[in-house]
Amino acid sequence: MGAQEVSMKYWEDIESGQVFQTGSITIDAADIIEFATEFDPQPYHLDPAVAEESIFGGHCASGWQVCALMMRLLADTLERDHIPSRGSPGVQSLRWLRPVFAGDSLHAGITVTALQQAECASDPGRVQVSIDVLNQKDQSVIVLDTELLIEHRPAGAGK
Amino acid sequence: MGAQEVSMKYWEDIESGQVFQTGSITIDAADIIEFATEFDPQPYHLDPAVAEESIFGGHCASGWQVCALMMRLLADTLERDHIPSRGSPGVQSLRWLRPVFAGDSLHAGITVTALQQAECASDPGRVQVSIDVLNQKDQSVIVLDTELLIEHRPAGAGK
Repeated sequence: MGAQEVSMKYWEDIESGQVFQTGSITIDAADIIEFATEFDPQPYHLDPAVAEESIFGGHCASGWQVCALMMRLLADTLERDHIPSRGSPGVQSLRWLRPVFAGDSLHAGITVTALQQAECASDPGRVQVSIDVLNQKDQSVIVLDTELLIEHRPAGAGK
Repeated sequence: MGAQEVSMKYWEDIESGQVFQTGSITIDAADIIEFATEFDPQPYHLDPAVAEESIFGGHCASGWQVCALMMRLLADTLERDHIPSRGSPGVQSLRWLRPVFAGDSLHAGITVTALQQAECASDPGRVQVSIDVLNQKDQSVIVLDTELLIEHRPAGAGK
């Protein structure tokens, strides 16, 4: 059994209530404008001066960019912990709670809320998670409930 | 009353059951790799050869990139129809139904499912929508239910 196998974390190794802490990522004004220009060209994302006068009170990122940054934090965590993922079928709920401003740093806590084994061992198991993305003041900026598809331990693979 | 006011579409002008058809947008392999490199660096988004062998059966976009493209279709439609939006508080459900492959063209139907007036006229009204994003074969790739905040008609503004 090689070192690589030993370190893999399969569906069987994940427990309800477990919390994964991600790394962090910082977003700047240029990132916000670049994303908004391509995907969400609304004045409060494109123009810092307009944004100051908006209900958001500052130059803030598209809510979908915050989701994309959450995905980066999640993907890096799956890779760091050697968890083989096959993506996600969807999101049960997503709330944008606070704007994310230029200069903010984001990190996330990923809490396992439920686990469902696949009927067929070659299919991935389901891992229900609640993801809380926070800024550098530890204020939640988005919260979402989603499901991850995580591979089952192959027959014969060691713990 | 100017021509610009006449063409504005406020919360009062939107009806339950109404369907907005968006324009379309095409995604290529370079777009998929660029987004994945920044936000979702998983092998089936980064590497077309790996993707061919994956459960997706081809080089496909991050699900969050599909959401971002949906946002672009939505934002362009709001601008086209002169609908003043103040963003969204969240998403009630989101399902990724089919992969979006390099070369696919996406468009969407946005169906108004419910309307809720703001208690205070200076606050935006709520418009519940179901958004169905389809590929060039008219197959749904994502479906989501979300809420848009749309400004009320200002006192004295003409229809």
